[in-house]
Amino acid sequence: MLRERQSHLVTEADLRSLASAARAASRVVAKAPAQQRHAALVAIAAAVRAQAPAILAANQRDLDGAAARGLAPAMIDRLRLDEQRLAAIAAAVDEIAAQPELIGRLEREETRPNGLRIARMRIPLGVIAIVYEARPNVTVDAAALCLKAGNACILRGGSEAFHSNQALGGAVAAGLEAAGLPAAAVTVVPSTDREAIRTLVGLDDLIDLCIPRGGEGLIRFVAEHARVPVIKHYKGVCHLYVHAAADLEMALAIADNGKTSRPGVCNALETILVDRAIADVAVPRLCARLGGKGVEIRGDADVVRLGGAGVRAATAADWDAEYLDLIVAMAVVDDLDAAIAHIERHGSDHTEAIVTTDAAAAARFLAEVGSSTVVHNASTRFADGGELGLGAEIGISTTRLHAYGPMGAEGLTTSKFVVRGTGQIR
Amino acid sequence: MLRERQSHLVTEADLRSLASAARAASRVVAKAPAQQRHAALVAIAAAVRAQAPAILAANQRDLDGAAARGLAPAMIDRLRLDEQRLAAIAAAVDEIAAQPELIGRLEREETRPNGLRIARMRIPLGVIAIVYEARPNVTVDAAALCLKAGNACILRGGSEAFHSNQALGGAVAAGLEAAGLPAAAVTVVPSTDREAIRTLVGLDDLIDLCIPRGGEGLIRFVAEHARVPVIKHYKGVCHLYVHAAADLEMALAIADNGKTSRPGVCNALETILVDRAIADVAVPRLCARLGGKGVEIRGDADVVRLGGAGVRAATAADWDAEYLDLIVAMAVVDDLDAAIAHIERHGSDHTEAIVTTDAAAAARFLAEVGSSTVVHNASTRFADGGELGLGAEIGISTTRLHAYGPMGAEGLTTSKFVVRGTGQIR
Repeated sequence: MLRERQSHLVTEADLRSLASAARAASRVVAKAPAQQRHAALVAIAAAVRAQAPAILAANQRDLDGAAARGLAPAMIDRLRLDEQRLAAIAAAVDEIAAQPELIGRLEREETRPNGLRIARMRIPLGVIAIVYEARPNVTVDAAALCLKAGNACILRGGSEAFHSNQALGGAVAAGLEAAGLPAAAVTVVPSTDREAIRTLVGLDDLIDLCIPRGGEGLIRFVAEHARVPVIKHYKGVCHLYVHAAADLEMALAIADNGKTSRPGVCNALETILVDRAIADVAVPRLCARLGGKGVEIRGDADVVRLGGAGVRAATAADWDAEYLDLIVAMAVVDDLDAAIAHIERHGSDHTEAIVTTDAAAAARFLAEVGSSTVVHNASTRFADGGELGLGAEIGISTTRLHAYGPMGAEGLTTSKFVVRGTGQIR
Repeated sequence: MLRERQSHLVTEADLRSLASAARAASRVVAKAPAQQRHAALVAIAAAVRAQAPAILAANQRDLDGAAARGLAPAMIDRLRLDEQRLAAIAAAVDEIAAQPELIGRLEREETRPNGLRIARMRIPLGVIAIVYEARPNVTVDAAALCLKAGNACILRGGSEAFHSNQALGGAVAAGLEAAGLPAAAVTVVPSTDREAIRTLVGLDDLIDLCIPRGGEGLIRFVAEHARVPVIKHYKGVCHLYVHAAADLEMALAIADNGKTSRPGVCNALETILVDRAIADVAVPRLCARLGGKGVEIRGDADVVRLGGAGVRAATAADWDAEYLDLIVAMAVVDDLDAAIAHIERHGSDHTEAIVTTDAAAAARFLAEVGSSTVVHNASTRFADGGELGLGAEIGISTTRLHAYGPMGAEGLTTSKFVVRGTGQIR
């Protein structure tokens, strides 16, 4: 046990040396032809399938450890792999492989009056560090998306998933090597102490970007100590505004789906705003529908009055809460402006939806609400890279720099200016 | 004098209150119709012209102060405004006004299999802080570009230009007010102490991005203290590679232009790499051409041997130097791979050029050199927002996040996902 614990600690020099190797590998990956990166992705999917017994055995060790430490059932569920989940992980890699190639693509070509031909060429970012918690599938998803975008990555998962991540990292390494790419292009950090994160996110000469994924505590820790750029979201306090001209049946279905289909995820609904013009009818029906699904409703004075016996009075904290549970805050607002003002004050720049048949109101909501995903007549649950057509998702950004909203492989690239002339001078 | 000095000091509370006002103004500007922002830009240009006498008088105060403090002539030249320079500043604002509108533009619309219509809408970033040094034109350029992109900005110029910046800020405020926009949309910080910068770049709840422009010292100070995202470049160590298949006359003209047309700017040429296959002919001619223009040449052993009496031996530091002066480093490299490796090791991700008639060599150089601008058969001096067709430039980024290379108004925007449905749930 002592030896195993020690193996989880790596020194700052070790981390620097891992990151240097990742940097060198990033140059090889960036220059590798598209076919070679494609072959590596296909080989990684195959290796995950071929090594399933060893991966599941490693996962069982993590599950045993989690049970011994009394981890919460939700955490254990996130940690668990089985045949079906492994098959889905491998299938996601194949899907990413099948997406169109990004790197080297020329965009926005134009010719200047002096004859210079200007274009932008899509290129990788370099080395991406991903810091995450219990879900071992992130190891393979992140590796595949980074590779698709021509980057190397350094993956530092949670201690709960240590053995699973090492085993999955082994499958990824096998796939890279089968395609003739350096295994250091995807480095799974053999450490689970928090100091390793602090060191990693300080290596701004070797790492181009850090994406933390997990609870707010982890994300704040990374943001606080990072010297490299960080793309993150802290939380998703998603709103649904039921406008005066809403189709009420549609609003009920969208509210129900937003709140109850998967309450623990960041695009789940947390607050419902109901237009005063229809509150008398809409509030009782929303409360009945959600209450019938076991949702606790915390309302403002109007909702308490209209919503029936089950409604609790909301406190100030409820308007900013990300419950991640079967609880919803509900308020009556005077009009579209009041709804937008409420979202501006309490929103988290994640996802907000309006249900209305009034095209002008919808257009104003979509234009004026500044959140990274704005939705008309559909569920907030669509704020997801796969659902929005990105193929897969490396994370969601609620800060506006570089990427805003769900990020796929393209979010892991940038573009450079390519200038072609015939001897022009200035 | 005491009163004047005191007026340059503002407290942390003052800065927070300025930034809060800028944040509130940013919401107004973001929602303002395109015509209103356009009208403000046109009115700003008019106000700069109308207030020219007062602006030039303020500038004279700064010039007197600079002379009294014995500032370097180059610095005084950057500080100086005259009728012609003011006219150019106003004309640049009119040009920015005439550029196509960005905000609210829908891009990449597609319909998903479930009927959801997905698009991206271009939106402002919010509040941009620009921290800069002696050149007062930045005050107006930055204000105009931020406004074009629907942002508010906080401008903190150098102490040398204090009165000029206040006067130009007054003209900008007059233009904003004439168009019915809040003057706080462009805030010129009435302070010149460095502590104010430290405070500003820590206000991550109010400021979305900081762009420092100036010397490496200023930029490092900002990068070190910032809690807001920073877009920057430290230096431009630009390379020209004269390939074996170069048109030698073209190479001579491009080398001469890159080094001598404006040696003090970041896209000026600092290092010339000559392919060994043509070194016997090319090195003597390059040295003669540049030497004849008063350029000091610091060469490796081959260049010292071939370049004639005027060539000094380079030291290791020369390969990383940004001279910003009539000095150039020159080395002979074995081939394209050696040139790319040299640039990878010593480049600053700014701008690199190749001169060659060999299309395959050019294509490899353009693809494999990772700098933010790569150039074939033209001068590095074209790495400039105006020359690349961006209309104007807020800065150049040599870090890959968000923007890479010259940034215009579009670099001051981001995009959100807009989802339109007919009741879809998940």
